[in-house]
Amino acid sequence: MTTRQRVLTGITTTGTPHLGNYVGAIEPAIAASRDEATESFYFLADYHALVKCEDPERVQRSTLEIAATWLALGLDTGRAVFYRQSDVPEIPELTWLLSCVTAKGLMNRAHAYKAAVDDNRDAGEEPDQGITMGLFSYPVLMAADILMFNAHRVPVGKDQIQHLEMARDIAQRFNHRYGEHFVAPEAIIDEHVATLPGTDGRKMSKSYDNIIPLWLPEKKLRKAIMKIKTNSLEPGEPKDPDTASVYAIYAAFAGPEQRQAMRAAFADGIAWGEVKQQLFELVNAQLAAPRERYEALMADPARVEDELRRGAKKARAISRPLMDRLRAAVGIRALG
Amino acid sequence: MTTRQRVLTGITTTGTPHLGNYVGAIEPAIAASRDEATESFYFLADYHALVKCEDPERVQRSTLEIAATWLALGLDTGRAVFYRQSDVPEIPELTWLLSCVTAKGLMNRAHAYKAAVDDNRDAGEEPDQGITMGLFSYPVLMAADILMFNAHRVPVGKDQIQHLEMARDIAQRFNHRYGEHFVAPEAIIDEHVATLPGTDGRKMSKSYDNIIPLWLPEKKLRKAIMKIKTNSLEPGEPKDPDTASVYAIYAAFAGPEQRQAMRAAFADGIAWGEVKQQLFELVNAQLAAPRERYEALMADPARVEDELRRGAKKARAISRPLMDRLRAAVGIRALG
Repeated sequence: MTTRQRVLTGITTTGTPHLGNYVGAIEPAIAASRDEATESFYFLADYHALVKCEDPERVQRSTLEIAATWLALGLDTGRAVFYRQSDVPEIPELTWLLSCVTAKGLMNRAHAYKAAVDDNRDAGEEPDQGITMGLFSYPVLMAADILMFNAHRVPVGKDQIQHLEMARDIAQRFNHRYGEHFVAPEAIIDEHVATLPGTDGRKMSKSYDNIIPLWLPEKKLRKAIMKIKTNSLEPGEPKDPDTASVYAIYAAFAGPEQRQAMRAAFADGIAWGEVKQQLFELVNAQLAAPRERYEALMADPARVEDELRRGAKKARAISRPLMDRLRAAVGIRALG
Repeated sequence: MTTRQRVLTGITTTGTPHLGNYVGAIEPAIAASRDEATESFYFLADYHALVKCEDPERVQRSTLEIAATWLALGLDTGRAVFYRQSDVPEIPELTWLLSCVTAKGLMNRAHAYKAAVDDNRDAGEEPDQGITMGLFSYPVLMAADILMFNAHRVPVGKDQIQHLEMARDIAQRFNHRYGEHFVAPEAIIDEHVATLPGTDGRKMSKSYDNIIPLWLPEKKLRKAIMKIKTNSLEPGEPKDPDTASVYAIYAAFAGPEQRQAMRAAFADGIAWGEVKQQLFELVNAQLAAPRERYEALMADPARVEDELRRGAKKARAISRPLMDRLRAAVGIRALG
């Protein structure tokens, strides 16, 4: 096993990436992958996508879009291991092995499951109405994702802390029964995760229908930015940057000097239209080159496929020998 | 797809086979595999074994013993597909795909799970105390076992009928969502399954500690048979074959003429010792040649391993292309 710290990041493959994903998740993750002290694993969680999405075209399309996004934004696949979950058949096998040591009571306490049950109760339905075994046992699959590569650290949002604790619990149970095979993974929780406001001022999120997609063509990007809600202060009137969505988005893309200049312009009464024009120019300048790469990748999906296959090969060079050891540990062995 | 009916039989790989297993399950299954109209699949359910058995040596040892048993008793592996569940990585993968269409409520209603919950309640424990996700989601794995080979018919004991119905339900849900990929399997329930009494007169079963192991060496077999409980009727007194365990076992191994002769001997007051001696000779004559083959296989596990690998190759020639189609159906597809 390597002495470098392994950091593993799962990437959901449903939906279209937006500026909030870029600022809050993708950009920092790609930056972190440049840290020499870590060995980074990024995977497209397409088995997980099946829990939420029953439209095969969308599953496939999202996988392509998300993979192309990470590649276009400069993920260094020479250094990081970038793979598709479903290219590693050891993961579902490990899921079964872990199921056999996972207490059902642990899954009963999962927040996501309990929230679904509460919703059903509120709606006067049976508690498990519409809940699949995929949703219920999802934390076991997530544990397999992490333990398969003996990741030391897993960056997670606050809503995922419990799942990490479950993965630790499952690792310990397996180790206790079959010997020390797994590292107990630690959650990395970024308390200061950048969240971006959407076009209506609330947090940018698909569920609020207020997103600005990351890969809008230039003209549409400008149009979307022009539609961001502002207050009715006129040009010449001083404005408060700290309550303005346009400033929050600007600040996420700008350097310190640009931010300072913009704050001064707010105090001087810059017009909203002018702020938006400058915001568009800033965002567009950062995204123009990646957007070109993204469009080239989307036009040549075979290149994306090649990258993912190369990543799968690197991933399986780790998962296969570990799985051999795990099989031997539980008693699944060649007979002679 | 073949037009022959596919019949699939799962073989538990925990414990040591006894005369009751031979008469009630193994012998009839091997006989059925000779039917030209069917294509027979037999698999060693070692993933299932992990739910019940956490002793790796025992898992491995049982797999060898059970495989050697079926081979020694004449399973024709040229005609039938005889494989180890854990040699087919498509099975755990299919298990995940099926999980995503399986209602959790369906699993809540499984008899085996409910019985475990009732036991906990009776003991004043939490309902899910000691219940693993392996036990809870076992019917999904069993559905994957069956659907992976599109088996038309599955011979089951009465306690397994519900699991078959669950497999049908899961197949229908998947077909409904993703197109017609699966045959809805039918249970074959043998109402007249031969159950053998054990040494104490109750049904022969590990849980009663009254079994006669199938592969006892000759002397020990004789000793075990001599210990079967009888009543205290003396030699010369007429005896009732229909209440005597020794007769029931004799009848299971004998042909019609032998049975008739033995019934006559009972009416004539044959001594219990003499009945047991004849029973021993009858059973031993049938098992002597298979026992030699069994011992030869146990002394050369590599031969058993070879047979299982050959079987896995045949099994995967079916499971791999089906899995490819299923992956495409749910949206897991090459990107370019």
